[in-house]
Amino acid sequence: MIRLTEKERTLARRIHELKAAAGTHSPSISTFLEKVPEVELRVDACFLSNPHATDLVLDRLEKEIIRTGKLRQCIELYPSQNGVIAERLARQLGVNAGNVFVGNGAIEIIEAVLHNFVNRKVVDNIPTFSSYYEFVNDGIPVSFYRLRKENDFRLDIDEYVAFIERERPDLVVLINPNNPDGSYLSKVDLRGLLTRLRHVETIVLDESFVHFACEGDRERVQYYDLFAENPNLVIVKSLSKDFGVAGLRAGYAVMAEHRVRTLVKHGYLWNTNGLAEYFLKLYSSGDFQAEYEQARRRYLDDRDEIGAVLRAIPQINVYPSNANFFLVEVVDGSSAADLVARLLIQHGVYVRTGADKIGLEGEFVRIAIRSREENRIIVDALRASFEDAQRLAA
Amino acid sequence: MIRLTEKERTLARRIHELKAAAGTHSPSISTFLEKVPEVELRVDACFLSNPHATDLVLDRLEKEIIRTGKLRQCIELYPSQNGVIAERLARQLGVNAGNVFVGNGAIEIIEAVLHNFVNRKVVDNIPTFSSYYEFVNDGIPVSFYRLRKENDFRLDIDEYVAFIERERPDLVVLINPNNPDGSYLSKVDLRGLLTRLRHVETIVLDESFVHFACEGDRERVQYYDLFAENPNLVIVKSLSKDFGVAGLRAGYAVMAEHRVRTLVKHGYLWNTNGLAEYFLKLYSSGDFQAEYEQARRRYLDDRDEIGAVLRAIPQINVYPSNANFFLVEVVDGSSAADLVARLLIQHGVYVRTGADKIGLEGEFVRIAIRSREENRIIVDALRASFEDAQRLAA
Repeated sequence: MIRLTEKERTLARRIHELKAAAGTHSPSISTFLEKVPEVELRVDACFLSNPHATDLVLDRLEKEIIRTGKLRQCIELYPSQNGVIAERLARQLGVNAGNVFVGNGAIEIIEAVLHNFVNRKVVDNIPTFSSYYEFVNDGIPVSFYRLRKENDFRLDIDEYVAFIERERPDLVVLINPNNPDGSYLSKVDLRGLLTRLRHVETIVLDESFVHFACEGDRERVQYYDLFAENPNLVIVKSLSKDFGVAGLRAGYAVMAEHRVRTLVKHGYLWNTNGLAEYFLKLYSSGDFQAEYEQARRRYLDDRDEIGAVLRAIPQINVYPSNANFFLVEVVDGSSAADLVARLLIQHGVYVRTGADKIGLEGEFVRIAIRSREENRIIVDALRASFEDAQRLAA
Repeated sequence: MIRLTEKERTLARRIHELKAAAGTHSPSISTFLEKVPEVELRVDACFLSNPHATDLVLDRLEKEIIRTGKLRQCIELYPSQNGVIAERLARQLGVNAGNVFVGNGAIEIIEAVLHNFVNRKVVDNIPTFSSYYEFVNDGIPVSFYRLRKENDFRLDIDEYVAFIERERPDLVVLINPNNPDGSYLSKVDLRGLLTRLRHVETIVLDESFVHFACEGDRERVQYYDLFAENPNLVIVKSLSKDFGVAGLRAGYAVMAEHRVRTLVKHGYLWNTNGLAEYFLKLYSSGDFQAEYEQARRRYLDDRDEIGAVLRAIPQINVYPSNANFFLVEVVDGSSAADLVARLLIQHGVYVRTGADKIGLEGEFVRIAIRSREENRIIVDALRASFEDAQRLAA
């Protein structure tokens, strides 16, 4: 069991305060390093982002924007309006342009959807991404359907449908794969579930982690055909995780045309910055997608590798994940907070606990998949933390 | 009087349709060139932006971000949260951190303010920036106070105060200098007016063009001390115009702390992208501000130069402007639309008419100030358009 030294405890308290000030999201790593300069960060394992995809985007950016002098245009000129960018994206997605809403990151879309398409009640599955309840308007109740750890956080479809029928929400949120546990509903099951939820006015299907989901031979799963079958769907896509470009703030959603019109009528006119617009053009091109596919598969290899090694550590229980992170339960009696402090202070590895996650009771940490080299640092740090504890206990 | 040829007329119709599709804002220049490839654009004189400031920002960006390899951080990592960036900005502005709200461009702030701080009625002075009425929620009336061209679009303070007392809005909008006419209320007059409007719940003071306002020896005017005196003020600042960085999407507002809390509570968490965050850091640094001051003064020289030349053209009437554009009335019997088409098709100079501006009846075009060289192209094109017309008429 990990026990912190006095010095570690003091620093842990400061980190905890910084974390509390950032609300239910980790402070950005630059904010973190600015405020806690004595920590020597080696790996940010809070950060859910494919580094191989970042390499690829940066490489293209260097060739197509920096070297050509086009950076000036991206900085100086107004970006295109929402509808113009939507038109380009729609071709890539295989949907109508009128069904695409472009966001300043998925977070803006989540906010817009919760503020505009709920009158009665929201149902979230917990644990979940906190914005899905925090951004709900005052006066709108949120009911939580609890995913159970005994069930590896998998959704029990019959039970869930009964819950929805009892609660009568007008908006339900499905994140698939789910954050923060990585549980996944196969597309066949999802399709069946959606058929049974046609009476709900709005189903938000957050597919931000879908590129990490595997069905069959690591084929990419895509959900846009489900929208054709279920007009009550609002498919929300963050591009930060799979493409490794959180700083660009790029996201989009596919939804009924009247919803897009409602949103654009009162705002969101120029919400995409110049570099995000460039990236969204890139995203719509076939040859970039082909290169990205390699980066995606390489990252999945990294995940499988660290997954196997993590499962061999006896002090933790690793939940099955179809996302780019593992939810891990500490089972040697250590507190998750102490493990996080030890990893950060002694090893420079930054992970987050699940302490602020409603519906996640127990000693949980979420470990992001990074590059192969960084994953090794994470695993070595974990092992060392537990071994030190054992040695001291012996 | 300008009369278009058949060919010009056909192209003018296409441009008009494209413009209509973009709503009450000009289509972005890249959208425009994508859709009307036969136009050879030389100067975008719709574009309200200081090119010298763009040069300066790009120079810093090259040195501090591109050459140092820090671009990766700007693209890959999550930007800081709203409150963290606000804290840095507040120091530069000389206000409390709790009073600063950071926006994805001023347009996001305008949207947020209109959606959250109006229950009864809005008063706009017309002509105005159309988002100030378009983004108002359905069911909220907007009353227009008309600025008169006979009065050079200057606000008549007594008449305006009487109008406000009669209309009883809970939100009034003052853009100073005003867009699209460039009229300006001196700070002394503004302070006096604000004292008489203390009973109004919210006064939006849009200072997006204030760096182009001159009082005394071209000193920069600033309004943050007015906020200390008038807690009902919401000061809105676009950084696109004065700093020439529209593609970055950077803006902020100064407002009462409870308003900032209301906005951040339900969203706007990560609404600043990585490069905009870098720019806002730059904006907060003293040495950058000193260099910017030179770019600002140089641009004011450019404005004065083209202003004098425009005033010598007999076919137009140039209204006094404290902004980075001139509102110009065509007085030789030509239609503004025909002048715009002629300028674009024959000379590659893109200006906009005032046709979509409520409260601006007559044949108006708005001409943006560009660099000295571009300003000469604009003026030469204007002169040539009128001279051709005279020659044909003779």
